[in-house]
Amino acid sequence: MTETPLCLIPLGGLGEFGLNMMAVRYGDHIIVIDAGMMFPEAELLGVDIVIPDITYLEQNRAKVRAIVLTHCHEDHIGAVPYILRALNVPVYGTEFTLALVRRRLEEHGLLDSARLEQIAPGKTFEIGPFSIEPIHVTHSTIDCVALAVRTPQGVLVHTGDFKIDSTPVDGRPFDLHSLARYGDEGVLALVADSTNIERPGHTPSERAVWPRLEELVRAAPGKALISCFASSIHRIQQVIDISAKLGRKVAFIGRSMVDNVEIAHDLGRLRIPDAMVVKPQNIGDMDPRKLVVLVSGSQAEPLSSLSRIAVDNHRFVRLERADTVVLSARIIPGNEKAIFRMIDHMFRRQALVYYSDGAGSPVHVSGHASQEEMKTVLNLVRPRFFFPIHGDYHQLFRHAAMAEQTGMVGGRVLLVEDGQQVLLTRDSASVGEPVTAGRVCVDSGSLEEIEEAVIRDRRHLAEDGVVIPIIAIDKHTGRIEGQPEIVTRGLVPSDNGQELTSRAREVVLRTIENSNPDERGDWTVIKEKIRGDLRRHLNRETSKRPLVLPVILEI
Amino acid sequence: MTETPLCLIPLGGLGEFGLNMMAVRYGDHIIVIDAGMMFPEAELLGVDIVIPDITYLEQNRAKVRAIVLTHCHEDHIGAVPYILRALNVPVYGTEFTLALVRRRLEEHGLLDSARLEQIAPGKTFEIGPFSIEPIHVTHSTIDCVALAVRTPQGVLVHTGDFKIDSTPVDGRPFDLHSLARYGDEGVLALVADSTNIERPGHTPSERAVWPRLEELVRAAPGKALISCFASSIHRIQQVIDISAKLGRKVAFIGRSMVDNVEIAHDLGRLRIPDAMVVKPQNIGDMDPRKLVVLVSGSQAEPLSSLSRIAVDNHRFVRLERADTVVLSARIIPGNEKAIFRMIDHMFRRQALVYYSDGAGSPVHVSGHASQEEMKTVLNLVRPRFFFPIHGDYHQLFRHAAMAEQTGMVGGRVLLVEDGQQVLLTRDSASVGEPVTAGRVCVDSGSLEEIEEAVIRDRRHLAEDGVVIPIIAIDKHTGRIEGQPEIVTRGLVPSDNGQELTSRAREVVLRTIENSNPDERGDWTVIKEKIRGDLRRHLNRETSKRPLVLPVILEI
Repeated sequence: MTETPLCLIPLGGLGEFGLNMMAVRYGDHIIVIDAGMMFPEAELLGVDIVIPDITYLEQNRAKVRAIVLTHCHEDHIGAVPYILRALNVPVYGTEFTLALVRRRLEEHGLLDSARLEQIAPGKTFEIGPFSIEPIHVTHSTIDCVALAVRTPQGVLVHTGDFKIDSTPVDGRPFDLHSLARYGDEGVLALVADSTNIERPGHTPSERAVWPRLEELVRAAPGKALISCFASSIHRIQQVIDISAKLGRKVAFIGRSMVDNVEIAHDLGRLRIPDAMVVKPQNIGDMDPRKLVVLVSGSQAEPLSSLSRIAVDNHRFVRLERADTVVLSARIIPGNEKAIFRMIDHMFRRQALVYYSDGAGSPVHVSGHASQEEMKTVLNLVRPRFFFPIHGDYHQLFRHAAMAEQTGMVGGRVLLVEDGQQVLLTRDSASVGEPVTAGRVCVDSGSLEEIEEAVIRDRRHLAEDGVVIPIIAIDKHTGRIEGQPEIVTRGLVPSDNGQELTSRAREVVLRTIENSNPDERGDWTVIKEKIRGDLRRHLNRETSKRPLVLPVILEI
Repeated sequence: MTETPLCLIPLGGLGEFGLNMMAVRYGDHIIVIDAGMMFPEAELLGVDIVIPDITYLEQNRAKVRAIVLTHCHEDHIGAVPYILRALNVPVYGTEFTLALVRRRLEEHGLLDSARLEQIAPGKTFEIGPFSIEPIHVTHSTIDCVALAVRTPQGVLVHTGDFKIDSTPVDGRPFDLHSLARYGDEGVLALVADSTNIERPGHTPSERAVWPRLEELVRAAPGKALISCFASSIHRIQQVIDISAKLGRKVAFIGRSMVDNVEIAHDLGRLRIPDAMVVKPQNIGDMDPRKLVVLVSGSQAEPLSSLSRIAVDNHRFVRLERADTVVLSARIIPGNEKAIFRMIDHMFRRQALVYYSDGAGSPVHVSGHASQEEMKTVLNLVRPRFFFPIHGDYHQLFRHAAMAEQTGMVGGRVLLVEDGQQVLLTRDSASVGEPVTAGRVCVDSGSLEEIEEAVIRDRRHLAEDGVVIPIIAIDKHTGRIEGQPEIVTRGLVPSDNGQELTSRAREVVLRTIENSNPDERGDWTVIKEKIRGDLRRHLNRETSKRPLVLPVILEI
């Protein structure tokens, strides 16, 4: 009888950015490392999020033992609720990671049925034939781990997302020693994050942003708005500490920002001095020179707090002349146009706006390893087999090439994409039969009604139909020209179709009336608002959830 | 009676990227400097190009004397055919600029009625009360000028697009002396390019790309494909010279590349050694180690030559293992995802792909001035009044701030956007009543049928209707699921609607059948193909030109 190989089956994140997921199989036992989502490309109209296709896991339903999460970012945990609906297996993660997963499951009404298992660095746990040690790594959020998975064929090391920060904000540096220990013992396979493979050198420590942020807050003639990802707890801690040092109070704005700060604070992972927090509704009463506002929406997501503030449409925060705005986050490729549109709105309101321009002291540093850190990990682990994960194809390609060049891989460097399984034994590696892999589009309801979300395979759309509101807006005046056209297909029997479209037309008109000229001038925002309002209306009226695809024609 | 002011009326390019256009008015005389277009944002479905709103010019039809062009880039000349249809005024430009305008007018069937006036650096010409001297400037294309416009109120200097290249490929450096002469004499107003205001220092000379390009071609184990903008004549010259030096022949691929090389060569602006050119159809017969292919499509435009080559769908060029591909062009923000999708296709074919990654010796340098060059121009011209042009609002804002800081503006620095006219006298500057300005969307027909193009104000769309083909494609197999849905509105009377949609469905199916799996997997490409084919079909069948908005649903 032939030997049972260890199979590594990438189901997402190899050959694309986001939706990271890898199945690890030995015989009848499968564990799934990470279950991420991605935000869709602009071409995919009407889709909220994209998750990996889990046909392979469903085909092997009885064998799937657990999902093990490396950290709390959306591209690693975002698909968990959708997958648990299909496969209710235990979910393993660190304390902070599980806290965020818990919140997500609550929104989906799945918390009661979920089995969550907390793990911690250095504490080995067993799942079937796998013995798994989480290893502490540094990254842009907290409680991140790599995984050393001991299997009958040898040890697999999965880095998760990481950088090697020797001076992290929470004083817990990257655990080089555990990686070294596995390297000494001998590692069968290493799979490692490729995100920053095109950056030479070493990514600066998270602390590198302190000097510039302190300088900007110190110099701010009015209030200082600082925007970062809500999961960037280290960044948030530094902003709190800088504010305390400079005698400013802090307000938190944006649902995800408020949630994450609350969770991190409850877990004792965020130190906030007493009486330092200002409630959103009290911002207007504060001396602006005594205030820092931490706000989510750095990617100019439509309807995010920062986007609303930029067009003067936020309940509590008004951007005044000489207020300071710092985008302490990466400008993610694909988001530039929206981000710079938002920045331009701020400049027009005479705000002082700062963002990463590559020059001078940074207001943001990456959470991912650059080339030299990747080489350090290769050198510590010295695996027999290696393949890169987390990246577009060209990033995987370069990471594989770099690994070859270092000469630190004893056996073979492989280059695989989603669906190509790697079969490993102690002394062989091969690419096996492809398995089903791909992307599934999820229309999760509008941003405000996530709780009702259901998996909406596009196959089922025919049932609920399509509604295409076509709105002609005069660029000069911001006024609607004529009546919105409502094109529908497959939504209602044609007898009461007239009434339905005329009411839908009113909803669209009302949404536009309730928007200010800046919003009406920003296609992304106005489309998102129309989509949300119309979808809620149609759901109420028809109990269906048609795909709503607004089209704006500028005239 | 009050004095007649000089009015500068920005109609495009201030507060947005592209479609540059400025009217200069003195009393009853208006000249228009540049008439550019922009490519639409992804949100503007079904629109091919965007041009400035010329309502102001149409309202003052009798006063418009001429269009004066600074150089041949699309964001400076692209709207000329559309504007000449409305206002047939003379067009002034340098030799190469007019050659490209001529080709464009020919495509639009407007060449016979157009009046083109050739200008040259140092040769002053008169239009009404304006006396205009073109001043030679360096940029990424050839035959570029700034304009010194002598008016009854004083001299206006308009930089056009420029960088200060002291060692240009054609040996004609930036004409600092003429600017200095006007500075000595006294300049009323300077308006200057803001594109690279966020880059400190000095933009490298165009020659800075030679070493790396030579190194890559020398090392190329197979054929070398080099992609740049078709108007980058300096870049093309260097690639030709490098190829000659290394004993390789050159082929030109892509309509715009072939056109521009031919025009530049005919004008003696491109030196191509005898017998060095390989015809596209002979590429397959050549020893790849003796070949360099210059190809357009560096921005991964759907259906461009380079995009087709990347998915193995080009008649003459097949990308083989170990071929070299160099993207010798800027990755324009907004295009990253498409470009990296294209690059990934090339990596999968085992090509060696190189592009600007910010590190090491460059394969591309910018054609726009960085901060120190902008300061040099301010210092040379020392204008009384200044305002920045060519940029998003944040770029104009920073350029204005920099101009203030240099202290070189004697009077006032203004910050205006499209439609805000600046009124100037010898000793005063003010912002006047706003004029109509904005964007007009043009649906120019498919990429292949530009000749039939007409201005299609969105107001007229109701006449021709909307057709929305909805196609569900299985991501795994690339196969269509079910039948394409065809949603139409306002296209035909409903009695023969059934037939029309069923034939449209067949057209869509055929387009998809004739595409290869890589194309079917790339939404941008497949949508563009469906849009083109379906529009041609509908035009033939109905003699109308409905807006075609394909929607791809992945399942």
